[in-house]
Amino acid sequence: MRCEFIAIGTELLLGQIVNSNAAWLGEQLALAGIDCLYQVTIGDNGQRMKDTITQALERSDAVIVSGGLGPTQDDITREVIAEVMGVDLIRDEEIAEKIRYRFESRGRVMSDNNLRQADIPMGGMPIPQMPGTAPGLICPLGDKVIYAVPGVPFEMKMMVNECVLPDMKKRAGLTAIIKSRVLKTWGQTESGLDEMLTERMAYLDEVGGATIAFQASGIEGLKVRITVKAGSEQEAEKALSDEEKAVREIIGEFIFGTDEETMESVVLDMLRQRNLTLAIAESVTGGMVGARLTSVPGSSDVLKGCIVAYASEIKYNILDVPEGPVVTPDAARAMAEGARNALGADVGISTTGVAGPSEQEGQPVGTVHLGLAIGDYIEAQMTQLPGDRARIREYGVISLLNFLRLRLLGRDANTPFAGKTR
Amino acid sequence: MRCEFIAIGTELLLGQIVNSNAAWLGEQLALAGIDCLYQVTIGDNGQRMKDTITQALERSDAVIVSGGLGPTQDDITREVIAEVMGVDLIRDEEIAEKIRYRFESRGRVMSDNNLRQADIPMGGMPIPQMPGTAPGLICPLGDKVIYAVPGVPFEMKMMVNECVLPDMKKRAGLTAIIKSRVLKTWGQTESGLDEMLTERMAYLDEVGGATIAFQASGIEGLKVRITVKAGSEQEAEKALSDEEKAVREIIGEFIFGTDEETMESVVLDMLRQRNLTLAIAESVTGGMVGARLTSVPGSSDVLKGCIVAYASEIKYNILDVPEGPVVTPDAARAMAEGARNALGADVGISTTGVAGPSEQEGQPVGTVHLGLAIGDYIEAQMTQLPGDRARIREYGVISLLNFLRLRLLGRDANTPFAGKTR
Repeated sequence: MRCEFIAIGTELLLGQIVNSNAAWLGEQLALAGIDCLYQVTIGDNGQRMKDTITQALERSDAVIVSGGLGPTQDDITREVIAEVMGVDLIRDEEIAEKIRYRFESRGRVMSDNNLRQADIPMGGMPIPQMPGTAPGLICPLGDKVIYAVPGVPFEMKMMVNECVLPDMKKRAGLTAIIKSRVLKTWGQTESGLDEMLTERMAYLDEVGGATIAFQASGIEGLKVRITVKAGSEQEAEKALSDEEKAVREIIGEFIFGTDEETMESVVLDMLRQRNLTLAIAESVTGGMVGARLTSVPGSSDVLKGCIVAYASEIKYNILDVPEGPVVTPDAARAMAEGARNALGADVGISTTGVAGPSEQEGQPVGTVHLGLAIGDYIEAQMTQLPGDRARIREYGVISLLNFLRLRLLGRDANTPFAGKTR
Repeated sequence: MRCEFIAIGTELLLGQIVNSNAAWLGEQLALAGIDCLYQVTIGDNGQRMKDTITQALERSDAVIVSGGLGPTQDDITREVIAEVMGVDLIRDEEIAEKIRYRFESRGRVMSDNNLRQADIPMGGMPIPQMPGTAPGLICPLGDKVIYAVPGVPFEMKMMVNECVLPDMKKRAGLTAIIKSRVLKTWGQTESGLDEMLTERMAYLDEVGGATIAFQASGIEGLKVRITVKAGSEQEAEKALSDEEKAVREIIGEFIFGTDEETMESVVLDMLRQRNLTLAIAESVTGGMVGARLTSVPGSSDVLKGCIVAYASEIKYNILDVPEGPVVTPDAARAMAEGARNALGADVGISTTGVAGPSEQEGQPVGTVHLGLAIGDYIEAQMTQLPGDRARIREYGVISLLNFLRLRLLGRDANTPFAGKTR
């Protein structure tokens, strides 16, 4: 089945909004086994909308139109679809009642133009999910179909996931269950992972059952996506688990989490399981390590706090760093220990380095020392990070969290540290 | 002049990359006074590329194609454009030499397929700017024109700014200088600003010379963009300054910066001018205030540091907050003063609150207290912030920075504080 995506909105053409819906939808369609060959963006103009939808119907089996479903005079997607179908709009009284109720239940006065949203092209149906006041539409036309969904991302996503994709798969006769799992990796390049998994991927090409794909995620590392197709939910789940196991046997050391897990959620979970509390001392990252860990709900049972020692005297006075240069492994170690002592935690971690734009203490931009203190084990690791000020700092944060993660696992290529738990 | 933008790349259709080029280009074209009515995304497929470019030439005067200019077999934009033009590709020896030199000067071996990038459709010209190894193209076709630029954002932007837009304006006979300035506001809604500026905008509609437009920037507030058109650079600059003055007279109290300025850069500049140093105490924002201020190069001459007192005992022990509830105005004040004292700064600011998902100390999610200590002036402000955990925290950060900004200006609707400088 071929699908085409048409985004309606002058604000998209003017660049006032980035069309992130297109990327999201593209990914969902690909995962569902549906081809999407064209994405088109046009403004709120009747003739251009009509021409574009008509052309899309000629070259695709299904068309998803987003936007133009609101209550204002600009919003003409309903009218244009009715025109393309050659039918009238009929007011759906059930939907009209829902819209009236939404306003009344919030004590707001409803202007009559809101009821335009209850108009449905004859032969079409409203999409049952209705997170906002604008209902979506399913409009069959011969053996083809037009779907209309709002441009608001969360409304669009709910309707696509719960109605449009299942309907489209049914029409396409796609009965197979497609499921995927993302394995998140850190510390290996795409070509490195590709090389390690070449044999496995060649094997899968031959026997089928699953596919493996890579997806770069910027500073967050590389995702390895396993996708399986099966006759039932249960079979799909088993195939996923089997393939995950096989992949982990090959690149397991680089995998830090799956699906919704993040580096910060994984590190917090590991500390929690080991009954360890954490303290942070930051210099070059200026609070980003703390910000990232506290973005996870419930982080307060692990994280005691963080000292951003931006001025050197704070490092000396509060963290007991010996006076002298501060972009050094010694300073990183002292900071990790100082944070642990000052904040009364079991584990201390730290960053000190040079994010630029200019060098510091004779160290080049990108030099970042990571510090770690667990029990009697106090260590520093030096990294040379690429990119501009923002990237160096972001890389510094995730590098520090991964450093802590590996040590909690008792894993390191160079030192014999075997992890400590209380 | 009408322009159409065609983005080439299967990875865009699959949602592996968000098409942020489209938004950026849309904004540049609008600012240059060029209409863009269609944006189309297609994969690396010869026939579909040919069809789409041909259709674009029928309905637009200029077509910008991005992507497909690299050295691999997938990259066929050059071939397709030559086919649309009905001409052959000719190797440009000067470009070929440049490509060879790039490889040699980095000590890398060049495979021959890299020279494909030096092939130019007959009648076309390479774009002189060449930040990568893929040259862009200008290909006139009758009174229309096709531009080809790489998909890599920074390469695309350089070529568009320095070559494509000037060329397009020349072809369109657009000799007017168009210039714009962004005034960044915080603390007023779009409808509020719209109402305040209605009269001014009606006046401009009548007499011309400048236009005013609003652009929402999420938690960063609202941008007010002034755009002027004039015969010379000098006239444009004067018209901009005059209109900025007029707008500031109406909404000046909400404007915190212009163009590249940010809330954090403005606050740091104000502290620097007043010779004041800053200390931060954070709870609910977990390091985000520190992270945001230290994102500005040179912040170290103003910012001493930050204490993220996530656990209550850190608030009591290090910041001298009186034992008891910590989501209170008293705690916010004590934290601001405690940070100032502990870190030896002139000014202290603080956040304490509830980001959710669940309430705390009987306070609902979204409650955030901001604290401020300058000289003898110690104050707290309570805010009730909307959204989920991430948004509440982000709003908390910018609200705190704006709170400090207003106090440094000696401005407040409710208290008589008139600012202090040493």
